[in-house]
Amino acid sequence: MNTYPLLDSINTPAELRALPREQLPKLADELRAFLVESVSRTGGHLSSNLGTVELTIALHYVFDTPGDRIVWDVGHQTYAHKVLTGRREAMASLRQYQGISGFPRRCESDYDTFGTAHSSTSISAALGMAVAAKQKGEDRHGIAVIGDGAMSAGMAFEALNNAGVMDANLLVVLNDNEMSISPPVGALTKILARLLSGRTYAAARRAGEKVLGASLTRKVEEHVKGFITPSTLFEEFGFNYLGPIDGHDLDALIPTLQNIRNMEGPQFLHVVTRKGQGYKLAEADPTLYHGVGKFDQAAGIQSGKSGGKLTFTQVFSDWLCDMAAQDERLMAITPAMREGSGLVRFEQEFPQRYFDVGIAEQHALTFAAGLACEGMKPVVAIYSTFLQRAYDQLIHDIALQNLPVMLAIDRGGLVGADGATHHGAFDLSYLLCVPNMVVMTPSDENECRQMLYTAWQHEGPSAVRYPRGSGCGAVPQTEMQAIQLGKGEIRRQGQRVALLAFGTLLHDALRVGEELGATVVNMRFAKPIDAQLVRELTASHELLVTLEENAIISGAGSEVARVLEEAALNTPIMRLGLPDRFIDHGDQTQLMHEIALDQAAILQRIRERLDHLRHS
Amino acid sequence: MNTYPLLDSINTPAELRALPREQLPKLADELRAFLVESVSRTGGHLSSNLGTVELTIALHYVFDTPGDRIVWDVGHQTYAHKVLTGRREAMASLRQYQGISGFPRRCESDYDTFGTAHSSTSISAALGMAVAAKQKGEDRHGIAVIGDGAMSAGMAFEALNNAGVMDANLLVVLNDNEMSISPPVGALTKILARLLSGRTYAAARRAGEKVLGASLTRKVEEHVKGFITPSTLFEEFGFNYLGPIDGHDLDALIPTLQNIRNMEGPQFLHVVTRKGQGYKLAEADPTLYHGVGKFDQAAGIQSGKSGGKLTFTQVFSDWLCDMAAQDERLMAITPAMREGSGLVRFEQEFPQRYFDVGIAEQHALTFAAGLACEGMKPVVAIYSTFLQRAYDQLIHDIALQNLPVMLAIDRGGLVGADGATHHGAFDLSYLLCVPNMVVMTPSDENECRQMLYTAWQHEGPSAVRYPRGSGCGAVPQTEMQAIQLGKGEIRRQGQRVALLAFGTLLHDALRVGEELGATVVNMRFAKPIDAQLVRELTASHELLVTLEENAIISGAGSEVARVLEEAALNTPIMRLGLPDRFIDHGDQTQLMHEIALDQAAILQRIRERLDHLRHS
Repeated sequence: MNTYPLLDSINTPAELRALPREQLPKLADELRAFLVESVSRTGGHLSSNLGTVELTIALHYVFDTPGDRIVWDVGHQTYAHKVLTGRREAMASLRQYQGISGFPRRCESDYDTFGTAHSSTSISAALGMAVAAKQKGEDRHGIAVIGDGAMSAGMAFEALNNAGVMDANLLVVLNDNEMSISPPVGALTKILARLLSGRTYAAARRAGEKVLGASLTRKVEEHVKGFITPSTLFEEFGFNYLGPIDGHDLDALIPTLQNIRNMEGPQFLHVVTRKGQGYKLAEADPTLYHGVGKFDQAAGIQSGKSGGKLTFTQVFSDWLCDMAAQDERLMAITPAMREGSGLVRFEQEFPQRYFDVGIAEQHALTFAAGLACEGMKPVVAIYSTFLQRAYDQLIHDIALQNLPVMLAIDRGGLVGADGATHHGAFDLSYLLCVPNMVVMTPSDENECRQMLYTAWQHEGPSAVRYPRGSGCGAVPQTEMQAIQLGKGEIRRQGQRVALLAFGTLLHDALRVGEELGATVVNMRFAKPIDAQLVRELTASHELLVTLEENAIISGAGSEVARVLEEAALNTPIMRLGLPDRFIDHGDQTQLMHEIALDQAAILQRIRERLDHLRHS
Repeated sequence: MNTYPLLDSINTPAELRALPREQLPKLADELRAFLVESVSRTGGHLSSNLGTVELTIALHYVFDTPGDRIVWDVGHQTYAHKVLTGRREAMASLRQYQGISGFPRRCESDYDTFGTAHSSTSISAALGMAVAAKQKGEDRHGIAVIGDGAMSAGMAFEALNNAGVMDANLLVVLNDNEMSISPPVGALTKILARLLSGRTYAAARRAGEKVLGASLTRKVEEHVKGFITPSTLFEEFGFNYLGPIDGHDLDALIPTLQNIRNMEGPQFLHVVTRKGQGYKLAEADPTLYHGVGKFDQAAGIQSGKSGGKLTFTQVFSDWLCDMAAQDERLMAITPAMREGSGLVRFEQEFPQRYFDVGIAEQHALTFAAGLACEGMKPVVAIYSTFLQRAYDQLIHDIALQNLPVMLAIDRGGLVGADGATHHGAFDLSYLLCVPNMVVMTPSDENECRQMLYTAWQHEGPSAVRYPRGSGCGAVPQTEMQAIQLGKGEIRRQGQRVALLAFGTLLHDALRVGEELGATVVNMRFAKPIDAQLVRELTASHELLVTLEENAIISGAGSEVARVLEEAALNTPIMRLGLPDRFIDHGDQTQLMHEIALDQAAILQRIRERLDHLRHS
């Protein structure tokens, strides 16, 4: 009955540390099997988690967690960590509504020292922790575990540049699996590959250690290192560089980490792992198994056409290729999200005009600005939540110069299982205040295509913001026609109440409109807002209700309110959107219910307001 | 009469290129003298501009500008460039209202290929230009001129990481003057210093060139370089590294650039310059002469106490030291703005708790988050406009985890002569939508001190946002007392109209209030807004007017409007703030007049609205 006898005996890292070292490979085997079984039932990240099983065991075995602080960069490789820190049973609720998160969260466990999900934050955070420990005279380590993909972000460089000259007990573990979600790009990739080619060094180091013991080993090490890998990037930054070692070999990991534990100052351990390790199907296609739904362990993911509706991502993908075929000025840029942003086909068809810049949102936007200066028409495909990384570049390099850079913002609104760190909750808020921006919110798939074309025609910065997944299923028309800038459309003529929808909530609005006999408007543009239409609506309605899947604070509804204020109109307005708090993970339907933004709640809230108006 | 005979003959770079090379040193001398004279009359950046005189001449002499695109990173070293590109006479209007900008601007000249002012954007932009040229089959170079300080930003690293593997005609000129505005920090500084110590190499290269001519020189170069500086950071990134050479020696600069012009692929030229070069007073104290007002050329800047009012920066500076003396958990962080943010005294008194992280706003905030996780109380001193660089870190690393990181946001509102790139126009807009934030807007110097203390007491993320310069002159009280969270205060009880001021506009509001017999409220908190007070005001007033020096879109006024909407109150509201466009440079008074946010305009706009209300 008990498939995982050893794993079931471990409820805390302290119990792990009590195990004899020779039992650890068996524990790793059980843990890996458990993860495959567990993720096949819940969905979640798989490849990355299979890659870090031994590393997780080794870190908790050697270091005194949670006293020593492990910060897991990007956080989607922490399932083994969760299992070993008391959340084995909770894994059944992974990424589900009110279940445990797919990422580390400080509120979930003392072992989750820092919430991560956006990439490349770990070195900065772990350095802060290490510096604080030093300041307080506490003997603890700050440990950042960061992938090679995450290293391409400027933020990681900023942290390295600072950490290398600080006298703090920081360990950076580079988990080098030769890929981010998309294949890695940039010069750093080549640098790492060169380091890996010096494998003899690692073998020498390990041999030395077995014979000589730690302190003498270090002297040998200095010598060998100087001879075989004369100077690495990370040594230039002031780190003591160790590795590369095999991240699936506990006999390499554990003694190396034990040595490092006793060293002072910034340490850098280069570990090589394989995404999907130990599960043949994931090893063969780690990108396919990066983020998965439920699947059959033996059969694997059944790919092929789902037969379902097009996603907005696919609509964008098709538009991009169609447009590029018509206009060679089109250049497409992705910050390391080729698959997620729908650029796989574009790369195949237009390799010369495809730019994966790595996890480098800042560079992505300013590089696009440079292209635009020369008459190109760059399209940056980016997730709403990651665009936050390039806010200054959008303002200072694009909008201020009124350059025709086009943003295809995916994952606007709630994204579901990825949760608070990934919801596209704020983009309308932070975009509307930026002068010169045009911001569109398509209500369905065809409108998305036509809006992308509209943005394309516009001679200034523009954004089309669409949600994760699919919409109502409106088949995109091949023919492209620009929509008039800043014009909404009345979709249902009713009375008393006018529902002004931004984006896919239009379809809920239409059903609510039927119930109420209300007018329903597809606003289409969050900026410029259709002020004329808003003013006209006030003449014939008692109440305006705005609907959007964005923070209610400073969202599109606030622009509708401003139209009324500027025209000195006092028609009551009610804004519906995301409340002023971070929203957890879970099924999108459950989340919309929780925040009273589902159809029933919208209807009820409007009725209550109407009652109030009637009695006041 | 004609002090600058040679300079006066040059109106375009084409005319410069027609000069015989031996005349260039004389041109440099005249140009430098002209700059000192000109800046002494207008104020502006001095040290950085004196450092790039020869480099500017050499670049325009060798390259075919504006066909070849020079992007000047951070842009405050472009005065020589402006003079040589037809703006010699316009220099008299530098940084003045409707005069030329202190930074490059695309709308100002064809030679200003990219607007810069925030640091570290140049490589991304120039790479975009070079890639576009290649795509179009045009033979032109993209040239980024970037300082060593700017290199510490992650964005520059992201660009290097991409540029090094792209086959584009990009030249990065590292203008190494061993300082950003504050002294440089981080590992990169040490790396550059090591490169400089290999000076013999440059001498060897130049000697070789003179004897051998370019192509053979390159072979010698490869050899010599391999021998003396075995591998540099920049070569690791895929660049052909050349230098270091003396950036004030035209006989080194010009032949080197001529060689580079004929090379394919990414080139990296390391040039050493001295800020303030040629003006003894600036050489002696380049930081003092970084940004200057008008001064006497012979006597120099007359320092010593100005005898005027305290600036808000000084209020912060004093509070920080006072607080640090009381509580050793306080850690202060600056992204390379020690002087501007008022941290000079703090560094002297609390060196162990002072962290200048370089131009690395992203790291600054997440490093602070890491400190806060361990019970420290980090204070990040940052300019409003630069906080845009760390927006994601604020949301994802600080606010989402509700960590007690405190932001001291300087330069909120219009900054004057630095113009559109530096105005703190958007911070309230992009902060208010972030859950868990507390955002305060002090109306005077003493309130600023008390708000800093209030933020300090708060167990979550907070921001105190104050303007450039001084306020009404309220002397800060030594004793510190926390202000009740989310509570405004009525400063003048009147009738009909209530003026709700956020920040220093309170004092204009008070005078306008006198004229109108209106109520005047110091709102104090932009978030949480004092909803109760707002509701109470509606009971006794016909019109609410909000006042803020922030974008009117999504500013504090929009939160006041939301209070009314949520309470279903239909008291008219009028929001006054910055209009939805970028605002140019100029005297703050002139700018406030231009945007109708000075006292007279406020009064008039309210009267017009009252008239309208009366007749509707």
